[in-house]
Amino acid sequence: MALQPGGTFLDRTLQHLRKVWHRIGDHRENDIELQPGLSDEDIPRVHDWFTACLQADGGEVAARTRAAKLGEAYLQLDDQGRKRFLLIMAEQFDCDDAVIESAIEQWRASEGSERVKARQALQYQLYPPRLQLLKQFTELPEGVKFLVDMRAELLRFRKEEPALAALEADLKRLLIHWFDIGLLRLEQITWHSPAELLEKLIAYEAVHAIQSWEDLKNRLDSDRRCFAFFHPNMPGEPLIFVEVALVNGLADNVQKLLDEQAPLQDLQQADTAIFYSISNAQQGLAGISFGNFLIKRVVGVLQQEFSNLQQFATLSPIPGFCRWLDAQPDAMSQQLHAQLTEPGWWKNVALSEQLEQDLSKKAAQYLVLARKGARAFDPVAHFHLSNGAEMAQINWLADCSEKGLKQSAGMMVNYRYQLADVEQNSQNYLDQSEVRRSAAISALLE
Amino acid sequence: MALQPGGTFLDRTLQHLRKVWHRIGDHRENDIELQPGLSDEDIPRVHDWFTACLQADGGEVAARTRAAKLGEAYLQLDDQGRKRFLLIMAEQFDCDDAVIESAIEQWRASEGSERVKARQALQYQLYPPRLQLLKQFTELPEGVKFLVDMRAELLRFRKEEPALAALEADLKRLLIHWFDIGLLRLEQITWHSPAELLEKLIAYEAVHAIQSWEDLKNRLDSDRRCFAFFHPNMPGEPLIFVEVALVNGLADNVQKLLDEQAPLQDLQQADTAIFYSISNAQQGLAGISFGNFLIKRVVGVLQQEFSNLQQFATLSPIPGFCRWLDAQPDAMSQQLHAQLTEPGWWKNVALSEQLEQDLSKKAAQYLVLARKGARAFDPVAHFHLSNGAEMAQINWLADCSEKGLKQSAGMMVNYRYQLADVEQNSQNYLDQSEVRRSAAISALLE
Amino acid sequence: MALQPGGTFLDRTLQHLRKVWHRIGDHRENDIELQPGLSDEDIPRVHDWFTACLQADGGEVAARTRAAKLGEAYLQLDDQGRKRFLLIMAEQFDCDDAVIESAIEQWRASEGSERVKARQALQYQLYPPRLQLLKQFTELPEGVKFLVDMRAELLRFRKEEPALAALEADLKRLLIHWFDIGLLRLEQITWHSPAELLEKLIAYEAVHAIQSWEDLKNRLDSDRRCFAFFHPNMPGEPLIFVEVALVNGLADNVQKLLDEQAPLQDLQQADTAIFYSISNAQQGLAGISFGNFLIKRVVGVLQQEFSNLQQFATLSPIPGFCRWLDAQPDAMSQQLHAQLTEPGWWKNVALSEQLEQDLSKKAAQYLVLARKGARAFDPVAHFHLSNGAEMAQINWLADCSEKGLKQSAGMMVNYRYQLADVEQNSQNYLDQSEVRRSAAISALLE
Amino acid sequence: MALQPGGTFLDRTLQHLRKVWHRIGDHRENDIELQPGLSDEDIPRVHDWFTACLQADGGEVAARTRAAKLGEAYLQLDDQGRKRFLLIMAEQFDCDDAVIESAIEQWRASEGSERVKARQALQYQLYPPRLQLLKQFTELPEGVKFLVDMRAELLRFRKEEPALAALEADLKRLLIHWFDIGLLRLEQITWHSPAELLEKLIAYEAVHAIQSWEDLKNRLDSDRRCFAFFHPNMPGEPLIFVEVALVNGLADNVQKLLDEQAPLQDLQQADTAIFYSISNAQQGLAGISFGNFLIKRVVGVLQQEFSNLQQFATLSPIPGFCRWLDAQPDAMSQQLHAQLTEPGWWKNVALSEQLEQDLSKKAAQYLVLARKGARAFDPVAHFHLSNGAEMAQINWLADCSEKGLKQSAGMMVNYRYQLADVEQNSQNYLDQSEVRRSAAISALLE
Repeated sequence: MALQPGGTFLDRTLQHLRKVWHRIGDHRENDIELQPGLSDEDIPRVHDWFTACLQADGGEVAARTRAAKLGEAYLQLDDQGRKRFLLIMAEQFDCDDAVIESAIEQWRASEGSERVKARQALQYQLYPPRLQLLKQFTELPEGVKFLVDMRAELLRFRKEEPALAALEADLKRLLIHWFDIGLLRLEQITWHSPAELLEKLIAYEAVHAIQSWEDLKNRLDSDRRCFAFFHPNMPGEPLIFVEVALVNGLADNVQKLLDEQAPLQDLQQADTAIFYSISNAQQGLAGISFGNFLIKRVVGVLQQEFSNLQQFATLSPIPGFCRWLDAQPDAMSQQLHAQLTEPGWWKNVALSEQLEQDLSKKAAQYLVLARKGARAFDPVAHFHLSNGAEMAQINWLADCSEKGLKQSAGMMVNYRYQLADVEQNSQNYLDQSEVRRSAAISALLE
Repeated sequence: MALQPGGTFLDRTLQHLRKVWHRIGDHRENDIELQPGLSDEDIPRVHDWFTACLQADGGEVAARTRAAKLGEAYLQLDDQGRKRFLLIMAEQFDCDDAVIESAIEQWRASEGSERVKARQALQYQLYPPRLQLLKQFTELPEGVKFLVDMRAELLRFRKEEPALAALEADLKRLLIHWFDIGLLRLEQITWHSPAELLEKLIAYEAVHAIQSWEDLKNRLDSDRRCFAFFHPNMPGEPLIFVEVALVNGLADNVQKLLDEQAPLQDLQQADTAIFYSISNAQQGLAGISFGNFLIKRVVGVLQQEFSNLQQFATLSPIPGFCRWLDAQPDAMSQQLHAQLTEPGWWKNVALSEQLEQDLSKKAAQYLVLARKGARAFDPVAHFHLSNGAEMAQINWLADCSEKGLKQSAGMMVNYRYQLADVEQNSQNYLDQSEVRRSAAISALLE
Repeated sequence: MALQPGGTFLDRTLQHLRKVWHRIGDHRENDIELQPGLSDEDIPRVHDWFTACLQADGGEVAARTRAAKLGEAYLQLDDQGRKRFLLIMAEQFDCDDAVIESAIEQWRASEGSERVKARQALQYQLYPPRLQLLKQFTELPEGVKFLVDMRAELLRFRKEEPALAALEADLKRLLIHWFDIGLLRLEQITWHSPAELLEKLIAYEAVHAIQSWEDLKNRLDSDRRCFAFFHPNMPGEPLIFVEVALVNGLADNVQKLLDEQAPLQDLQQADTAIFYSISNAQQGLAGISFGNFLIKRVVGVLQQEFSNLQQFATLSPIPGFCRWLDAQPDAMSQQLHAQLTEPGWWKNVALSEQLEQDLSKKAAQYLVLARKGARAFDPVAHFHLSNGAEMAQINWLADCSEKGLKQSAGMMVNYRYQLADVEQNSQNYLDQSEVRRSAAISALLE
Repeated sequence: MALQPGGTFLDRTLQHLRKVWHRIGDHRENDIELQPGLSDEDIPRVHDWFTACLQADGGEVAARTRAAKLGEAYLQLDDQGRKRFLLIMAEQFDCDDAVIESAIEQWRASEGSERVKARQALQYQLYPPRLQLLKQFTELPEGVKFLVDMRAELLRFRKEEPALAALEADLKRLLIHWFDIGLLRLEQITWHSPAELLEKLIAYEAVHAIQSWEDLKNRLDSDRRCFAFFHPNMPGEPLIFVEVALVNGLADNVQKLLDEQAPLQDLQQADTAIFYSISNAQQGLAGISFGNFLIKRVVGVLQQEFSNLQQFATLSPIPGFCRWLDAQPDAMSQQLHAQLTEPGWWKNVALSEQLEQDLSKKAAQYLVLARKGARAFDPVAHFHLSNGAEMAQINWLADCSEKGLKQSAGMMVNYRYQLADVEQNSQNYLDQSEVRRSAAISALLE
């Protein structure tokens, strides 16, 4: 599970979007020329413009025209300009408490058939006007993608400008509505897919970087599967995608999986589907999770295609292990951590064999026992455990890439998804912090 | 504009949906057998079931299973059973005022970065649990269509069971979210479209009934266009559709337009697009209007395809005219109305010529001056005027079908859409009840 | 198996094709205006035009232009004009024997590597120039369909104009090349198919006429299948299609199969696929058979979709039985034939029971023993036997339509296709006139 | 125009095809195990097998089974084995002269309506049995591609085995039939096309090699177009493709066109379409030309999309120039050729300026006057002149790649296609060797 989602297209597609929206926005009249950084004189003009947008009636055509102009103006701004633009929205177009209080009173006073209307009216007043401004974009071509990317920018900006946090929270709400799971389509991605889409996989893959088109082709070969969720308003943009290898037995080494020279797996013999990479593709959808749905839907699809599959499991990184180990006060942890600093230690067979047992035990402790409040400390463990997976196996020298060695001493872990058990597992983990694990993992804890 | 939208598919597709959902709902355990009319013993069981649905965690798979069972159970009920089923939802799963009051207090007490969260939490509490129950269906195959049809039933039931009105209002809210115009796709329908879709046009056409497949084919010929809106979760179901004839000059007779023997219009000579029928296809979306968007989008599409089109207008019925005339106290109105009772009066050339002038004047008065509050009394006039159309021409002997003679003495009216003016017209009508009309209509009023 | 294939579209699409071709044919120069009936002055002009076509170089663009003009001119002619037009082609643009003889001599004289070229050159000379004229049309849009329909006309004309027979034979050769089975695509037709295509099924069905769109919908229901062959250059035109019912046991009555009120077959219980109608859709492809391929391919497709299908059989008419019976000299035949003239005899249970045994025996004799040369006298029997089917069962009162009673006293026969045996059966029938039959049929012969 | 067409897929797809065909060929009986190099004992077995294929009846299913086995056997052979396999076909299954002579006699003796049959029968006898063996493959999945690749092998083998030349000639005939221009579809290729297809462009591009996926993406950008011909039986395989740049004025430098960093052309300003690369993609279709059709069709498509395009021209290599120059006896030619051997001469501005005039004149002489029989000596010139193009402009330092410098001292030439003139130009060139050229080219000849 990639914790660092992919890139936004705001800048790459800027020229294209500006052209499309320029055509929609009718530019014969009331155009606004803004400074890239939004000058002090620009600010009241933008404010008036927003006000006009909210007051206007005039139907769809007018609304689209206005939204297109607004969007085009935004795209021409630089970082400072965008921050200022968004701050106007955040600060000047928040909810009006007096209006809300009045709606509360009306609701309280309502009776009978009026009650539901009064409740809905109160609910409506809880949408701040700035949300109304944002909602306009959803009707533009690629407007939903624009909002997703705008949230990615807000997530970046809000660190420096706390006043933007509330705007970000409102936009997140809007996006949660738009990205309702019932609207998403699961699609398989193959070497037959458009190059334009495959190029995005290369850009967005966040777990095991795709090195080249040949690497990608290997990941889409006949013994592999790749699936993604798509939204109807963003047809060429994957939201999240998973890469699966069909293998025999639990895969215990990711370099083997990614080896372009490895022979094809005989599908008759494949009994295991390994989910070796899950990447969120949209920074602007951070915190709006689809990974849980994705894995379970893909398990269903694979069961239909391959009746001889016996197990479904991930081959996952352990991103926080080495940092955690370093922070452990006990002597053994410190000694182990020191040994890992020796360059190429893992190629030293004797040393590696000596370390395997101890580090595997430490990893099991880390994964099962280390906590951040009630949840597992390791974010990937938390993700799969809350989905209801079982922690199945710790694999030694499973990822000997620089990154793999650095974050987890080359170890990886399999989480196994058994559809019949996931709900119970999930509930036990969420309610009682209980970690469902195999006997092998339990043995490492003794 | 059809005021009586088409049929629901609840019953026709019942067998199909029950089969699909039966497969999703895993029936090894906790199945509920209900009496078709929902017996008194069934009621507490259904209540417990709803409660369990709301409490359960367990992720998507479990939620789909539960929703599928619920839906399957509902489909097996008869009218009485459905009413009782919905009443449990409406009465036992409404909002909890105490919870809302508590959320109000927390919002009032919140400060700084907590404020937006508290506002969103309050907003969340304003969704009654019954809405949560309904929302589950959106993730089922054809679940959105199921909810649309359920609302059609609620609209029918609420007359007898006022307690269902609030549930209906909540469901309407949910559907407004789902049927956001940004999600809808405009598609052309042709003789190349699937028969399964065309069959629905025949069923749903509400203005000028489609007599046969040959009649339909004629309406999809090369000098005609037909467009509909579709939702991504209801791919084969039109939401609303419009039928257009490409002609030379304003069409003044609908029988001519529908005449299967009439020669094809030479498209080089066509300067006018006539929208001669707009039908809402989903009873369950009553009051959620797309007609305005549809007409304007279609105007845009036609302008692109045919650069020589000069005007876009409807040929519309005047549904309330004769009733209105009958209710007028003046002697002339009474006399005119009496003359219309003579069978076949319109085939009597002398009589028809004598009546034309007076009735046209009366129709102009009715359309322009008759009011229901601030809006035009005639519902079709109100629809087009609020969209920003201009009332262009009253046509004598324009619809000599039984229905046309009965409701408007055979008269019809053209509403003209000029994109450059629609916003201003619309605002003037909505703000000041101003009816934009041609000089010809004005002359009839003098 | 329909022996009377469907209609041509020459006249229906005339206007459309003339328009398309008119645009291709550049009309600024050397246009030819012909009399509809081709006047005596027109004839030398057409002749010169043909000559010019054959001499011209100039590449594709020019060839398309010329062919489009030629085609447009042809479409404007009436029957007499077309006959004259085709006669010029047939009589004036036949092979030149001297040229062929010279090619023969060159081939005889050739040696070594020249021999293959000389052989190919001779072969080339055996294509008459008129075939060259026809071949030009294949590059026009819908040109292949044009040639297919032209052959349908030639088949009609050649009775009155024997001189056209050779032209027809050449065109048939050309079409055999174009309609190579390797190019044809098998496609399923459903209620989801374009109405434009379904309309053609209604027009082309030649065995059991399709009464209405409802009748058609019933034939495409979930317990039915319909498949057709298509050619890449005639994408919307079925060449031949078959209608299949999935049933339990050998179907013995066609009215039951076609009953729109009959309940759906439970597909879990279906063990038999009944091919109850096969229709050639193109008169112009008469004698170029695809039926054999179609049945076997469809058997393969159905085996994949329904693993529980045990047998594949037709329910076929016996078109020549009553005529044959009438021509039999023996007293019993004469008596039986006489009894069939009584109106409604088949509703008379006693009479029907009395006749069943004798007529079934006669039908078995007719089907198995009656010969036209070495082949079965009954054309449908010949078709299925040469495909390798087994004659399985004679069904009493199986088709009580007027046509069914008239041609075969209401009897029908099942031919069973067992893929493992069809080749051997076919060879035995073709080589030794051996009719593969069930024990039940053999028993009737004793 | 690439003279060295792309690669075959025989070996790359070998494993795939063998698997597919293995499934079709039913392997329970009469399987043939052959040595990879075809042993002496294998040869009579293969011969018998061929004979059995030709004698068998048994319909399509049997034919497909046999062809699949034959094809699978062939794919398992090594080069020597394939040669022997093909030699059996070539030598043992040629035409039987006695049979042909007999058919000639029957034709001579035929009269009336028998004459056309006798002619067709003779024609049929001129197809050697080996062609019948090959034709079987067309009904297999990917069988047409198999035959195309087999011809590529024959073209390679026939140099060493002249006996294969006749077989190659027969196969060419068969392929000409199959690749009739009327069957080919013109399709645009974009960055949206399947990666699997784009990968083939990279492999097949024969004029200016595609360096990377980024290079390819640049060639498919919004100011570029790429079109290819496809055959219905080889849907993912381009037959020939052309790359087009939309520019302002005649492009005179190919490196500029291929520069990935160059800014996008403003399409409003583009008045010229430059065909800068045409590649045949199938070695096995060598000598079966589609280039002529392709260019003219693409001109038509571009004219429709961009109404402001004024001219259509190539930017073409002059492949034979330097070799020709070296072979010229005159002192000036020798001196010029010598100067070109100095490394980096073209970066020496003074030297380059000194050479430009003389070498341009020599290039004009070479292109216009140098002959191979009646045709232009330069193969690219011959291709475009026979298509009817005009030689428009010689460009100095237009291709400074190693290849460009080596073959033509960096010069390139534009051929201009003016649809109104191409037929006349083509005829003049083919009939009278007349080279249509611009005034600028003529000036260089003075």
